[in-house]
Amino acid sequence: MSLYSRIDAAVCRAISIGRGGIAPAQLSAALDYATTPGGARIRPTILMSVAMACGDDKPALSDAAAAALELIHCASLVHDDLPCFDDADMRRGKPSVHRAFSQPLAVLTGDSLIVLAFEVLAREARHDPMRCAELVLTLARQTGMPNGICAGQGWESEAQIDLSAYHQSKTGALFIAATQMGAVAAGQEAEPWFELGARIGEAFQVADDLRDTLYDAETLGKPVGQDDLHGRPNAVAALGVDGAIRRLKDILGGAIASIPSCPGEAQLAEMVRKQAERLTPVAPARSAR
Amino acid sequence: MSLYSRIDAAVCRAISIGRGGIAPAQLSAALDYATTPGGARIRPTILMSVAMACGDDKPALSDAAAAALELIHCASLVHDDLPCFDDADMRRGKPSVHRAFSQPLAVLTGDSLIVLAFEVLAREARHDPMRCAELVLTLARQTGMPNGICAGQGWESEAQIDLSAYHQSKTGALFIAATQMGAVAAGQEAEPWFELGARIGEAFQVADDLRDTLYDAETLGKPVGQDDLHGRPNAVAALGVDGAIRRLKDILGGAIASIPSCPGEAQLAEMVRKQAERLTPVAPARSAR
Repeated sequence: MSLYSRIDAAVCRAISIGRGGIAPAQLSAALDYATTPGGARIRPTILMSVAMACGDDKPALSDAAAAALELIHCASLVHDDLPCFDDADMRRGKPSVHRAFSQPLAVLTGDSLIVLAFEVLAREARHDPMRCAELVLTLARQTGMPNGICAGQGWESEAQIDLSAYHQSKTGALFIAATQMGAVAAGQEAEPWFELGARIGEAFQVADDLRDTLYDAETLGKPVGQDDLHGRPNAVAALGVDGAIRRLKDILGGAIASIPSCPGEAQLAEMVRKQAERLTPVAPARSAR
Repeated sequence: MSLYSRIDAAVCRAISIGRGGIAPAQLSAALDYATTPGGARIRPTILMSVAMACGDDKPALSDAAAAALELIHCASLVHDDLPCFDDADMRRGKPSVHRAFSQPLAVLTGDSLIVLAFEVLAREARHDPMRCAELVLTLARQTGMPNGICAGQGWESEAQIDLSAYHQSKTGALFIAATQMGAVAAGQEAEPWFELGARIGEAFQVADDLRDTLYDAETLGKPVGQDDLHGRPNAVAALGVDGAIRRLKDILGGAIASIPSCPGEAQLAEMVRKQAERLTPVAPARSAR
């Protein structure tokens, strides 16, 4: 089974828990709609890659962790698209959840996906209750306040933004969750994996700024120019296109250098390089590779 | 320390975790605003009473469970008040969170409180990781889909409502969480405590319907007549005021009869009786007590 299939199967199992039994049909359908077909599943792919690099001795925990992280990511997309935030009509090439269903159902879909993420983790406690609790804690820290994606979104309501805290919580947090949860699922300490996640997050932010500048809405499957529109900071505006591409490569070099010593270190570095290529689609045409 | 003070201290400790460090100031303030000063804190009071009836051998777990449950309850109030649901301007006698802050901050406050609830539980894992995981699981089941309060709210978007599932998830779920989490925090099985929670939830629903009919908005600190307005089922409409009061007493009798055998059974029955009196403020004037 490929890594992508393994992740997809874990997410589908998770959603089937939320849909089971007697349940309101539209909200059930919205849970499905918000999570499938998936995007690149980049965060759970990083999580699984780290878990495998650390030995992946409890695959049920890695599966649960990957699914939980992806559910939180999907929840954040559903809530971010709401009219009171980005007011986005499209997501992943189809109508956003509040457009396809309704605003109440979009709020509830996000809420339900957040809760389901923690349920999915807790259901696997029998494999190792302490690791399971550590996974809940790591995911919660990178999701909520004061350092998670909720905080990241919360900064956008402030007159004075702490840019470093904003970027780390808005985009970095779920990549930090990815590397740390991968390590924890395989029985390792979370802390040494912070930097790899933070750097991948930084790279992703710069790549997102590049795509937002260079691509049209049809290619992206979502509206472009949202940063300009919402007055959010943007690396391309600060560094120019070529400067942002150079910055992206530097960050990814730093990310690879930060990988903690582990059995699958070389393979993990290769995965980060691959993700880097995905992140920089414009690089071949502009750099002298 | 009184039970109320113990619960209040636990909720305040929980909120201070969410507010800590460098964080967006308004969202931090909104977390506080949404949780203090508290309402009756009835759900965590029930949880603590059950934990104490079962011996309360790990008070740190009972404290965390009580705080987590109250955070989920507060989160549900914040989201339920949003313009796309009840569009309530007031809550607990002051402006609702989206009126006092903004809609984006109200969505994020709810999200952050949900996440914080699970973080609060996971932080106490060292006391007993398996109980901690069970608490996460129990709370998640009664919060999310398909049986929790998210499902309850989701039923209101359906053309055909399963009334029994609707009531159990909308109002019953967090009372079921209260009795089950109290038992789990003290090392007992969750399942035998389901019925007590479900019956207290039923009683609470009938009492809420009575208050909604008999009281004015000023006394309640929130708008009245919301069920009529939103076409939701209501016990007073079905049974009349006196019929609803009789029904409430029957349900509470059943609740007391359902208490599982435990060291503090008699005291727990007394607590349920006390809650019953709080729930039926109109009873003395109308019944032949």
